[in-house]
Amino acid sequence: MRRVRLEKATCPVARALDAIGDWWTMLIVRDAFAGKTRFSEFQTSLGLAKNILSERLRMLVANGVLEKRPAADGGARSTYHLTEKGRQLRVILFALRQWGEDHLFEDGEEMTVVRDHENLPIARLSILNSAGEILAPEDIQVIKGHKSKRSRGRGARSTLA
Amino acid sequence: MRRVRLEKATCPVARALDAIGDWWTMLIVRDAFAGKTRFSEFQTSLGLAKNILSERLRMLVANGVLEKRPAADGGARSTYHLTEKGRQLRVILFALRQWGEDHLFEDGEEMTVVRDHENLPIARLSILNSAGEILAPEDIQVIKGHKSKRSRGRGARSTLA
Repeated sequence: MRRVRLEKATCPVARALDAIGDWWTMLIVRDAFAGKTRFSEFQTSLGLAKNILSERLRMLVANGVLEKRPAADGGARSTYHLTEKGRQLRVILFALRQWGEDHLFEDGEEMTVVRDHENLPIARLSILNSAGEILAPEDIQVIKGHKSKRSRGRGARSTLA
Repeated sequence: MRRVRLEKATCPVARALDAIGDWWTMLIVRDAFAGKTRFSEFQTSLGLAKNILSERLRMLVANGVLEKRPAADGGARSTYHLTEKGRQLRVILFALRQWGEDHLFEDGEEMTVVRDHENLPIARLSILNSAGEILAPEDIQVIKGHKSKRSRGRGARSTLA
């Protein structure tokens, strides 16, 4: 399916999509957040052919999203666990969820919902500037720059060239 | 590639991924936000085979993400424009972007960046409950429920069964 590799793209969206790979991959990540760790659990949940699931898990391990550990019971089956990089995919899952909730369900239709541990709903994600103002698409520009040298990971911020 | 259709899944993440389709689709949406409207513009930007691009555009129109309009100059070429449903994919693009920025670029590497019209950076997306508290993955539960009958669209909120 892939004709062009985007792992060297200067657009972070393109590079993220390249690293995530495809559609099934985010469902594996969703299931990992739900506590699934074993090949058989992912397979039952997703109804995916074993060779395809195996390839997707291998890719997620290679990309540092999951880590593979020996089975806790000493058995032959390894388990798969989200890394910190994998855990940070959570915002993408919520963005997908909220769009799906809004546009792909009829009123009253059966749907999984999310709550926090005190049963409060989750706030809607929105695009704000650093001053906390909500931005419309027209307010946003995409320009050339560089990744900041100052910081990494969770708190990393980009800066202009 | 697809073995299971998820358009009837009760999980909004699965249904959203089913509607978005694949990896290329979000890059078409990204380019539409950047003002591209013509088949040839998408093709130049994405380097995608014409038949595949054509199929993706058709699917995005069928799913109500893009709308096809006759060319403004009266020519033979139609143009493609984001619908309101399509514009609301923006949060997913930003979630992908922020994860890509954090994890897939070296410090100092060339990267496109986003700013608002006053050149302020965009705030980091984070998962909050309705009281504004930041949630860790462990704080979140996914449970059975239904889509609310009370409201639709942008402000729709889910409720428990």
